[in-house]
Amino acid sequence: MTKNLKRVLASETPDFAGREIRLNGWIRIRRDHGKLIFLDLRDRSGLIQVVVNPKVSEEAYKVAQELRPEYAIEVVGKVNKRPESAINKGLASGAVEVEATEIKILAKAETLPFDMGEVKLNLELPTLLDYRSLTLRHPSISEIFKIQEEVMKAFRSAAEKLNCTEIFVPTISASATEGGAEVFKVKYYEHDAYLTQSPQLYKQIMVGVFERVYTISHAYRAEPSVTTRHLSEVVQLDIEIGFIENFDELLDALEFVGTSIISDVSKKFDKTLSSLGIEEPLIPTKVPRLTLKEAQEIIFKFSSGERDPRGEQDLNAADEKLICEWAREEKNSDFVTITHFPTKKRAFYSIPDPKNPEISLSYDLLFRGLELSSGSQRVNDYDQLIKIMKDRKLNPGNFSMYLQAFKYGLPPEGGFSFGLERLTMQILELSNVREASMFPRDMERVDERLSASK
Amino acid sequence: MTKNLKRVLASETPDFAGREIRLNGWIRIRRDHGKLIFLDLRDRSGLIQVVVNPKVSEEAYKVAQELRPEYAIEVVGKVNKRPESAINKGLASGAVEVEATEIKILAKAETLPFDMGEVKLNLELPTLLDYRSLTLRHPSISEIFKIQEEVMKAFRSAAEKLNCTEIFVPTISASATEGGAEVFKVKYYEHDAYLTQSPQLYKQIMVGVFERVYTISHAYRAEPSVTTRHLSEVVQLDIEIGFIENFDELLDALEFVGTSIISDVSKKFDKTLSSLGIEEPLIPTKVPRLTLKEAQEIIFKFSSGERDPRGEQDLNAADEKLICEWAREEKNSDFVTITHFPTKKRAFYSIPDPKNPEISLSYDLLFRGLELSSGSQRVNDYDQLIKIMKDRKLNPGNFSMYLQAFKYGLPPEGGFSFGLERLTMQILELSNVREASMFPRDMERVDERLSASK
Repeated sequence: MTKNLKRVLASETPDFAGREIRLNGWIRIRRDHGKLIFLDLRDRSGLIQVVVNPKVSEEAYKVAQELRPEYAIEVVGKVNKRPESAINKGLASGAVEVEATEIKILAKAETLPFDMGEVKLNLELPTLLDYRSLTLRHPSISEIFKIQEEVMKAFRSAAEKLNCTEIFVPTISASATEGGAEVFKVKYYEHDAYLTQSPQLYKQIMVGVFERVYTISHAYRAEPSVTTRHLSEVVQLDIEIGFIENFDELLDALEFVGTSIISDVSKKFDKTLSSLGIEEPLIPTKVPRLTLKEAQEIIFKFSSGERDPRGEQDLNAADEKLICEWAREEKNSDFVTITHFPTKKRAFYSIPDPKNPEISLSYDLLFRGLELSSGSQRVNDYDQLIKIMKDRKLNPGNFSMYLQAFKYGLPPEGGFSFGLERLTMQILELSNVREASMFPRDMERVDERLSASK
Repeated sequence: MTKNLKRVLASETPDFAGREIRLNGWIRIRRDHGKLIFLDLRDRSGLIQVVVNPKVSEEAYKVAQELRPEYAIEVVGKVNKRPESAINKGLASGAVEVEATEIKILAKAETLPFDMGEVKLNLELPTLLDYRSLTLRHPSISEIFKIQEEVMKAFRSAAEKLNCTEIFVPTISASATEGGAEVFKVKYYEHDAYLTQSPQLYKQIMVGVFERVYTISHAYRAEPSVTTRHLSEVVQLDIEIGFIENFDELLDALEFVGTSIISDVSKKFDKTLSSLGIEEPLIPTKVPRLTLKEAQEIIFKFSSGERDPRGEQDLNAADEKLICEWAREEKNSDFVTITHFPTKKRAFYSIPDPKNPEISLSYDLLFRGLELSSGSQRVNDYDQLIKIMKDRKLNPGNFSMYLQAFKYGLPPEGGFSFGLERLTMQILELSNVREASMFPRDMERVDERLSASK
């Protein structure tokens, strides 16, 4: 460009009415009306309409004839107020348009494999993911990840309010974190190593250092199944709190973090969510708390006996939906906390209830029919931990760095974790967790479909 | 405890003078003076002195006799002002002490393998790491990670000031990110996959979505060497910026982020750093910028000909020290930016200078003798990218999701990345980057030494 103009974002254009500015962005839609060409230009702030009139600039008009969707361009032009009747209220820049005097192509694009100009992107999931580098640019998709960014901000803010120190822990581990076969093996120089199933053991160790910690890490699960709720690699948000006086303190922290995230995001993105038909969440002052047993009784009654989970070891997906419906109807709450799951159904570090060791001091936080977070108070006595490991056929020798923390005094503690993708999915009521991951990994896909790969 | 007292942190005790409180923490030092027992209690806020007097509580005294370092305990007692002469000015709680009326052991500790009561922890690195779950608790070590936490905060804050969106990208990849053999292989279901060497390709893709992005991720390097500066797994801080007008815009962003981090951390931890004999950093208004060639000429002259790097392809460790000494003496700056490295010495995505394709539009930011950050303007033209890949014997078929972004219009862009551990190391002037990682991974260690593992 010949002129040394500062770039203005689409959303800022109304402040520049009557002035000459420079824009950068991608062509979202190009409409050729013969005498005039209209461009919907997308930049990081939103959309702006550009008008190209050959009477204003022959040259710009020539370039505009060549433009196609996703071309990255630079535009110099004058910001004009639109007539009252032409104001687009759906757009931050809708009161103005830019009359182009110069257009420069910064990067060309091939013909798109599908239409990206509609408000919704109606593609089957495999296509959505096969063309991920392109489909992420569609406003309805990129918005998912603006919301995800806010989920993370809200989590950090809640963790900091709880006085947690942020820690950074590794993802390569010498042994399978929590036992079980669902781990990915890594060739680590001349040795075998594994990708961690969670930052669990490290965050517990760090309670000995900072008492209260939070960490954002990647968790890897080699589950050989394809469901709408599971990914092979997720971003996990973890908190661990030491020197707790009682179990309820953990539930307070869990509910504080869970409701803070949902509340912050729902407020910041209220317009987006309501435009998607998503209702404002019901966030009670006090989240209803039920033991698993109590929840099962309620489900039995609430479903008028159609579903009888009493005596089962866990809630299934249908139960989670039912108990959330109950909480909404009876307690005016989209959240419900379920506690006291059977010890043998939870990981080895969950502490058995001293009054009934068959039951653990564990919990799940449910939101609108889905588990958002899971956790427990932990076994913090070294000898008890060794005994449990042996009972579960885990080799304490594989956990020596972890056990060291308990050998040297670890106070009563507990914690919980959230999955970033699942939080995003649930807030946006997406039908598949893959839509809530920029580049989802599962059994069948690592960017490309694995079946198709070399 | 019988009484329902709210817990008070060590640092808060001066506000509770004359009142009864509850403390939680670990025994750092226990001094038995016969008639009195003194405890230095450590909690997440710092230290507090507890006095146990049998005349005040026979029972507490009995428990105190049993205590050893790293026992986790609960103390109930009265906060007493210390006489003027006994005030410990080195301690936030130094004007008071707590007279114990009750002590409860929450978790016992084995006899420590070494003394943790000194101001410094004088251990050889292997011992420091063999006992990592314990040594991290030493105030001189845990302080490293409080500073690390602040480094991360400062990075995020700078990235947000640049208007970057935070993105979350995967670490499992179908092919080696940047080519080369130094990758860890993962058994991914029935396929081979790799741990990413950096989030590079994904952050570039995301420029097409959000223009400006930042991401905090793990980077894996299977370098078969053991140096004081490299780890096999690091936390990497990445920024990528699209629609740049010129190369200098990238240098401005790089220097803004680099100096912001150092400046924020140095201010927040000024006391800690000065107590370690670390000088305040010299942060100039304008970081000196030199091309590699200019830097080599200066090194030659500045070393009075003792070192002649002219014509070499890169700066070695000694050169980086020398050019930083020069910047400090001549430019009053602890920072210096070196630009224009040979194209063949940089990764394939670095853009060759159109005026001289042998040289790339690349840069390193140095701080006090060490490279803090590295980056470049990128090749953003699809055809040029394919040609470079082929010239470098890289198979474009292994990069199809990446190439897709360029197929559909990616504007001029560039970026840079920092290593969290290296930043921490350099701020604290640590001699080995392992000290700046909570749980360092290298060729010889994954928590335990690999030679010793099963």
